[in-house]
Amino acid sequence: MIVEMRRGATQEQVDAVVERARSYGCEVQLNIGTDKVVAAILGSDTGSLSTDMFAVLPGVQSVTRVMVPYKLASHEFKPGPTVVHIGGAAIGGPHLVVMAGPCSIESHEQLLSTARHVRRVGATVLRGGAFKPRTSPFSFQGMGLEAVRLLDVVRQETGLPVVSEITSPSLLDAMVEHVDALQIGTRNMQNYALLSAVGQSGKPCILKRGLAATVTEWLQAADYLLATGNDQVILCERGIRTFETSTRFTLDIASVGVVKRASHLPVIVDPSHAAGHYALVPTLARAAVAAGADGLLIEVHPDPVNALSDGLQSLTFSDFERLMGEIGALAAVMQRPLAPVAVEEGPAGD
Amino acid sequence: MIVEMRRGATQEQVDAVVERARSYGCEVQLNIGTDKVVAAILGSDTGSLSTDMFAVLPGVQSVTRVMVPYKLASHEFKPGPTVVHIGGAAIGGPHLVVMAGPCSIESHEQLLSTARHVRRVGATVLRGGAFKPRTSPFSFQGMGLEAVRLLDVVRQETGLPVVSEITSPSLLDAMVEHVDALQIGTRNMQNYALLSAVGQSGKPCILKRGLAATVTEWLQAADYLLATGNDQVILCERGIRTFETSTRFTLDIASVGVVKRASHLPVIVDPSHAAGHYALVPTLARAAVAAGADGLLIEVHPDPVNALSDGLQSLTFSDFERLMGEIGALAAVMQRPLAPVAVEEGPAGD
Amino acid sequence: MIVEMRRGATQEQVDAVVERARSYGCEVQLNIGTDKVVAAILGSDTGSLSTDMFAVLPGVQSVTRVMVPYKLASHEFKPGPTVVHIGGAAIGGPHLVVMAGPCSIESHEQLLSTARHVRRVGATVLRGGAFKPRTSPFSFQGMGLEAVRLLDVVRQETGLPVVSEITSPSLLDAMVEHVDALQIGTRNMQNYALLSAVGQSGKPCILKRGLAATVTEWLQAADYLLATGNDQVILCERGIRTFETSTRFTLDIASVGVVKRASHLPVIVDPSHAAGHYALVPTLARAAVAAGADGLLIEVHPDPVNALSDGLQSLTFSDFERLMGEIGALAAVMQRPLAPVAVEEGPAGD
Amino acid sequence: MIVEMRRGATQEQVDAVVERARSYGCEVQLNIGTDKVVAAILGSDTGSLSTDMFAVLPGVQSVTRVMVPYKLASHEFKPGPTVVHIGGAAIGGPHLVVMAGPCSIESHEQLLSTARHVRRVGATVLRGGAFKPRTSPFSFQGMGLEAVRLLDVVRQETGLPVVSEITSPSLLDAMVEHVDALQIGTRNMQNYALLSAVGQSGKPCILKRGLAATVTEWLQAADYLLATGNDQVILCERGIRTFETSTRFTLDIASVGVVKRASHLPVIVDPSHAAGHYALVPTLARAAVAAGADGLLIEVHPDPVNALSDGLQSLTFSDFERLMGEIGALAAVMQRPLAPVAVEEGPAGD
Repeated sequence: MIVEMRRGATQEQVDAVVERARSYGCEVQLNIGTDKVVAAILGSDTGSLSTDMFAVLPGVQSVTRVMVPYKLASHEFKPGPTVVHIGGAAIGGPHLVVMAGPCSIESHEQLLSTARHVRRVGATVLRGGAFKPRTSPFSFQGMGLEAVRLLDVVRQETGLPVVSEITSPSLLDAMVEHVDALQIGTRNMQNYALLSAVGQSGKPCILKRGLAATVTEWLQAADYLLATGNDQVILCERGIRTFETSTRFTLDIASVGVVKRASHLPVIVDPSHAAGHYALVPTLARAAVAAGADGLLIEVHPDPVNALSDGLQSLTFSDFERLMGEIGALAAVMQRPLAPVAVEEGPAGD
Repeated sequence: MIVEMRRGATQEQVDAVVERARSYGCEVQLNIGTDKVVAAILGSDTGSLSTDMFAVLPGVQSVTRVMVPYKLASHEFKPGPTVVHIGGAAIGGPHLVVMAGPCSIESHEQLLSTARHVRRVGATVLRGGAFKPRTSPFSFQGMGLEAVRLLDVVRQETGLPVVSEITSPSLLDAMVEHVDALQIGTRNMQNYALLSAVGQSGKPCILKRGLAATVTEWLQAADYLLATGNDQVILCERGIRTFETSTRFTLDIASVGVVKRASHLPVIVDPSHAAGHYALVPTLARAAVAAGADGLLIEVHPDPVNALSDGLQSLTFSDFERLMGEIGALAAVMQRPLAPVAVEEGPAGD
Repeated sequence: MIVEMRRGATQEQVDAVVERARSYGCEVQLNIGTDKVVAAILGSDTGSLSTDMFAVLPGVQSVTRVMVPYKLASHEFKPGPTVVHIGGAAIGGPHLVVMAGPCSIESHEQLLSTARHVRRVGATVLRGGAFKPRTSPFSFQGMGLEAVRLLDVVRQETGLPVVSEITSPSLLDAMVEHVDALQIGTRNMQNYALLSAVGQSGKPCILKRGLAATVTEWLQAADYLLATGNDQVILCERGIRTFETSTRFTLDIASVGVVKRASHLPVIVDPSHAAGHYALVPTLARAAVAAGADGLLIEVHPDPVNALSDGLQSLTFSDFERLMGEIGALAAVMQRPLAPVAVEEGPAGD
Repeated sequence: MIVEMRRGATQEQVDAVVERARSYGCEVQLNIGTDKVVAAILGSDTGSLSTDMFAVLPGVQSVTRVMVPYKLASHEFKPGPTVVHIGGAAIGGPHLVVMAGPCSIESHEQLLSTARHVRRVGATVLRGGAFKPRTSPFSFQGMGLEAVRLLDVVRQETGLPVVSEITSPSLLDAMVEHVDALQIGTRNMQNYALLSAVGQSGKPCILKRGLAATVTEWLQAADYLLATGNDQVILCERGIRTFETSTRFTLDIASVGVVKRASHLPVIVDPSHAAGHYALVPTLARAAVAAGADGLLIEVHPDPVNALSDGLQSLTFSDFERLMGEIGALAAVMQRPLAPVAVEEGPAGD
């Protein structure tokens, strides 16, 4: 951390900076510039100090951070890479993993038919929404616990591991026994009560980027999960909010590369929520594969026109099959071939 | 809602739009343009319909919303204005209300001295943080329930009603008996489990705008609270995230006027979090009063240099006193004079 | 400037950083941290160095700027304040200056009646658009040079100094003889050919903030003007582009305070373009006065309903008169009373 | 265009809307809703009408646009696709075209060696900056006309067609004779004087997206070029400004798909300016190819560490060669193979 003093700062003010730094166990090196004093605060843990702690001191002009403020998620903490296991699927390993399924679970039939289709064409994890955070209280909020139980049933019927979003710590007990991984949605990326609860559950977790979160804040949120001792964390880029309105959100495709350089955690991309329209989903899905993402999270529905939520961004079975062909070819070029289907369908799965 | 069909859409596709609209109880009027069909979906409740429900239909080119998608928070639902009562303070009435206090509660002495000072110079509600949502898990997270109890003590000692942020539904029981109003923070604006729980508690609530929420989404979040039957909701503008980095957030001062035109709910401004630096807080506070805000929420600390959180944006006692003088003069010009101090200090308050 | 080396950077890599810094005439002080080398690049002119010059060197992890990258516009260069004179109006002095007039000049009658009205109720500069940069080539582009000549005529008839936007260096000769000040619009803030030409003309200049420009970039653009030796530069905040759509742009009201702390140049606010709707203009205009702006730039039209451009954000004569009453009262409280009408109407007036 | 009247609007107010619509040659169809009047303004050219023209009328609550406001750039105007020819390179045709070269031209030797290298590994257009719009007036502004002449020399030596940025209409005469295509930079996307001049020159033009421009505004800017009768326009996505700071700009990869759906013009991607750092350029370049871009514009420099501008985002020869290998493989999968080298080296080559 670098503390720049105002021109004319007193010796007493400089001393206060030095004293504060030392109180945090840091060393200080002072540079007497041509007309300003600049202090470098040194230590192995300055990333976790707040810049405000120095900026608030009298005579300080500016404080600039040098170390990144996340810790457990960083390459410096663990060179990585971390591989996350959801059932038989390994995210962050040699294969590209596609997770697919309906935005909202609507019935056993809908979920099962989707699961069978997506598995047949190469997806290895089933996603399905049970609790839907919706912008309006008057919109469909999901089938709730009944949907969680359907996930479990279909998991056994198809052998596909399942992932679903959790929206409150109070749902944890009911969900952990039925799903293989929990998803924390974009609106809850900084819901720290939820992050801690999910981390402590020990379940693998998909942490979606907040719609206005910087990559740095996203990795700090991951630190909340990792701080519980649970390292099974997958980051999911799903678009950020910008002034552009031709898509629902602006997919920050560069974040895939930024995360790869900064963190040991795997990163996947959700092209469906970013696009907001089925016609743009393949564009974003292909871009994500070529950018080097570890996986994809795609909404698929047997009948998007009659879906209870997000039908507009859901792919039909045939569109998804076509896209999987494109993805498979690109993934091969990227030397991250699609993951083989994890398990055989059996009467009761395993 | 206006549905524009693609050039060359078939009669069957148009019929499907009409049929879907009627299934929601709406009327449809078709305009046969020079070369396109445009359908107007009419009804008293089209604001609560999703545009996607039509956009997903074959042959549809675009769907544009005419009615606003919030309902209970709108002037159309209630011409308003709504006045919210926090203890003896009335927000949304003839007086400007200033709420002030420390970001984090650190001790009884700190809270009491602050309360006495802010009351003396004209604040009529005490704010104080007990549970602090922090970007990093390694930052100070607040004193928790002990701080909530200190709020209650100081309330009795000073007679000032108190408000504090709630971060999880599980804290509700512990907090409702000790505070006069609950605050929902910017990171939780779309934490719907929390919104519903707070609404049902019947407590007055300050709903901070999400840092990437449009005014429309903010009013939809208010709808979650209002849908519980609790109408004691105050909106609080606290800055949005933009590309500009010279302030922590960009205060959207226009939102005060936009909310006044759209909603019956009172709207206050938090200049402290938007500014991020004490030197800019007075600029934003004065602007808020002149823009017509119903109140202010300001961070004040007896010793910002040693505050455990957000010291940089906290005002000292003397800076706050000077600011209250400026605010009082502007409020008088705006014909929204500062609220008189609500109650006298008594040995046990009332 | 602070250069952080990667963990394990070689001595040769560190030497290259030192050598490059010295080649720019800077001194270097090296801090040997616990496990990283950090180099502070010191010198009186490091603000004008690009961080990239160091970031590109092998072994460098990050480069952070300490000094601001603008120079001539800074308080450090000139403690200030600079007062800009447009005819008899002094911007940045003890009085608040209101500039008003139509978005587009449409006729002599329209311009003269507006000039007389705004002068009567307290404006001391007349604005009027001759060349209009419009988003679509099919929109009205302004009356051009004929409008410039009308400004000159009305200036003589009313004694009000006039300001108008210039959109190309090729228009300079035709405009300088007819107007008292030139405006550089938001789309041209980084049109450096235009900035240099306007600076060299010696005319006072209003530099609008680019719709996606940081305050820092805005002050760097001011440096282009100031580098020509022309110090008659007024900064004008007019809203930035964000995700919020309830106003045309988001007025960054804090920028008034940020500029005042960073620069000696006066700063005014254009509430009309930020609001995009007449009903919100007074909200923003009042906020600007209370924030401490040196002036306002407001669109007024005798008949907004039939204006050829931006009628929606133009005030009627009566709305403007009412607003001037509010502004005058707030300005008095701020101890920046409205400027007295600068001059008497000339011989050709009525 | 849809005009929603306020509840309780008078018949006279409705009549005024109808009258105004008819004055523009539009038809009007009125829907008498349950409690509001909604008017649909119909006509083949409503896209070029301003919504403000109706919003400003008394009794109007909102106006929503149905038709897109650009015209000549739209698929509706020309089903497309348009193929643009720069020398022997065809952009928008069956091949992916890579344009590469230095940010700033620094010498004949630098330009020629770069041209030979990029041609050898598959680029078919040479880019090079002569006039550099820089944020600070104290930064290197390019070699100017001398660099333009060097482009011409190297074009003859290598046979590669050349493209360079134009920053002012006054440079047109000097540039048109030496370059094969002109580039309009992001800061000048709405410099309409420049757009018109470039359009009239008849030269092929690369129109970069403004850093805060919506796709719609970008296509409207293209309309300025197309309105001159020059249809040789290439759109270039280069990143937009958002709150994220880990890259210089946020590449809006979805815009490739959005433009393809909306317009007949080819669209290319500049990964260098979006990334701002050489290590992220390959990520974005690969994503662009997979998203379906018609080409790439990449900065390459023989010695980035000593480049006079943008060295940090420039690829070395070997990095570029490796990237071209990846791009070629992805392009083949996308069935848009790299364009064959357009021409043989001319008599003056070696």
